[in-house]
Amino acid sequence: MTRFLTILGATGSIGRSTADVVLAHRDELRVEAVVGGRDALALADVARRLGAKFAALADERGGEALRQALSGTGIESGAGQTAVLEAAEREADIVLAAISGTAGLAPTHAALKAGRRIALANKESLVCAGDAFMADARRVGAEIMPVDSEHNALDQALAAGLNRDVEKAIITATGGPFRNAPREQIARADAKEASAHPVWSMGSKINIDSATLMNKGLELIEAHHLFGLEPERLDVLVHPEAIVHGLVQWSDGAITAGLALPDMKVPIANALRENRRLRMELPRLDLAAIGRLSFERPDEGRFPCLSLAKAALRAGGAMPTILNAANEIAVEAYLAGAIGFYDISEIVEKVCSTLSGRQILMPSTVAEALAIDQEARATARRLIPAPVEASKLR
Amino acid sequence: MTRFLTILGATGSIGRSTADVVLAHRDELRVEAVVGGRDALALADVARRLGAKFAALADERGGEALRQALSGTGIESGAGQTAVLEAAEREADIVLAAISGTAGLAPTHAALKAGRRIALANKESLVCAGDAFMADARRVGAEIMPVDSEHNALDQALAAGLNRDVEKAIITATGGPFRNAPREQIARADAKEASAHPVWSMGSKINIDSATLMNKGLELIEAHHLFGLEPERLDVLVHPEAIVHGLVQWSDGAITAGLALPDMKVPIANALRENRRLRMELPRLDLAAIGRLSFERPDEGRFPCLSLAKAALRAGGAMPTILNAANEIAVEAYLAGAIGFYDISEIVEKVCSTLSGRQILMPSTVAEALAIDQEARATARRLIPAPVEASKLR
Repeated sequence: MTRFLTILGATGSIGRSTADVVLAHRDELRVEAVVGGRDALALADVARRLGAKFAALADERGGEALRQALSGTGIESGAGQTAVLEAAEREADIVLAAISGTAGLAPTHAALKAGRRIALANKESLVCAGDAFMADARRVGAEIMPVDSEHNALDQALAAGLNRDVEKAIITATGGPFRNAPREQIARADAKEASAHPVWSMGSKINIDSATLMNKGLELIEAHHLFGLEPERLDVLVHPEAIVHGLVQWSDGAITAGLALPDMKVPIANALRENRRLRMELPRLDLAAIGRLSFERPDEGRFPCLSLAKAALRAGGAMPTILNAANEIAVEAYLAGAIGFYDISEIVEKVCSTLSGRQILMPSTVAEALAIDQEARATARRLIPAPVEASKLR
Repeated sequence: MTRFLTILGATGSIGRSTADVVLAHRDELRVEAVVGGRDALALADVARRLGAKFAALADERGGEALRQALSGTGIESGAGQTAVLEAAEREADIVLAAISGTAGLAPTHAALKAGRRIALANKESLVCAGDAFMADARRVGAEIMPVDSEHNALDQALAAGLNRDVEKAIITATGGPFRNAPREQIARADAKEASAHPVWSMGSKINIDSATLMNKGLELIEAHHLFGLEPERLDVLVHPEAIVHGLVQWSDGAITAGLALPDMKVPIANALRENRRLRMELPRLDLAAIGRLSFERPDEGRFPCLSLAKAALRAGGAMPTILNAANEIAVEAYLAGAIGFYDISEIVEKVCSTLSGRQILMPSTVAEALAIDQEARATARRLIPAPVEASKLR
């Protein structure tokens, strides 16, 4: 049965892995539309390779280059936000939402409101606007398949029972580059040291989130929305080998778990399944060859971002939105060398406490969430020390 | 919703754990009938504690003692095979089949043919007469819930997809007491050394099967019948901590796994679930406290029983029945000190090859399977060296 797929964020890391999955399943998966950010030639290339019907570039200035690169192929194209939304809303069986950051929120939300089944890799849809996003998903009956390796593993582990029999859903963290480092060393670490991720190769912002364990905090927030689990039923376990991605502890004492070699093509293929799974020609997990899997508690003393995220999740309302926005600004400042490692958590904490003092309503729409996001960013920027010009920080 | 349960083998180890589960869920689980072997007083005790309506003792000679012990309680009783079958066939929502050995086959099969849902702990139903047993289950539409920790874990891990997308179902073995022992040491080991199981406390026969890894071979045969998986899709992994009990490798490269602390109450409670799981007040698995899980390939050189079982499974027909019967006789002889450790596999191999030479039809009924079982036992007995009287070996 052939299904049509639209890829939002086709030129990024998840998008490229998705292209590999699609190319291995030409009979089952056709591509309706592809969306890219700024690189017209890369987008034209992936559109041609995948045989897409439509290609949309977010950056209006690249529209002409895209059109020329696709001339004679029969592939339609467009540029700018209208074209991106048009791509997101086109008829398709699945929309893989992999535009990173808050830029991904509007097109992902547009696809959702159009009733599309969403294979979700955009964190902000849930972290920044989770309540509104999930309410809209329920209203239109749109199914959401998690692409993150942790949530994809939980999704599979949760198949063994009913949500109300779940005592705890646990996502794992590699522990990042500072898992065994003393606090004093972490405090002095620059962005380069913090970016040395032991397992996954990702973008620089997410590498820092991985070093602070904020990424796991954000993933707890995502898990809360995706699976309807209260904060008390969510937890994090450090597991440096990154083989077990998620575990579910059931009321009868049994545990189910989702495992995979750390290759994003596995959860992508899984999220694109339809009744049957897609057969992937990838190396298989060989536990005897790996020999040992290790587990430890995360140290929230050395990694305060994890506690901050847990607190924001418990507080609910606008607090996860504020936490995420403040973290983005703080990480940018850290990457620019303007602040130290532990300033990230201090800034996040200050923004959260500053804005929690004011009465900010829980965002009931994505637009409201984005407004709060903007306010939190502005508040965070005011906390960045002078040497870095504020204009450098988006 | 109250459900009625019958326990076949109520005075054994699984039966006693089942009683604990029932007593913790008095509102949900009532007991229809309990069946015991020889101990009338123990059976009367469990019947009273569980408030059973009927108690049946396999040993006719204990009937009077049972009747007296239950006088005034309103609990009916009976003794002998007819009473056991009557108990098995009584109206009930679930029959937990935990009579060990071939003695458990007839009552388990009787309950199955009566259309009861079976929580299966009797290995012989599948190892000795799997084809016939499963054909009857399909005919009457009886559901079978595995109680073995490995199969129960697989059952939960298999919930994440369709059977035809399973590449491999893997059960784990602790490796037994000789996991790291050199062959020469194993060859000299007596039954006492071989019975020192590192994790589970079980009966003596099953301890030896665990030391030879024959138990994992028999579990592969069970898994084949329970889940309809061909021999090529089944495998064994050594995992000394006995936390991960079963793993399923899917066609998209993902793996799901079933874990639990090694306590039989967990898989028993799971097998007794009905839509919702039973809440169990037991210690929860804490992977951070355990720290490490290790995995290795089983060594079929030092543990030839595993290869023999795999070969019997591949051969199919009557071969698993023959393997199991020969193993029972050989293990009895080993427990009696009549043969050495590696004589077990030699006798099993000889019986398999002797009887494979003759044309033995695949057992299409449980009665045929039991006839082949008897013939294989007789063949095995002839291979036991003289010093032990044949009459000592059942």
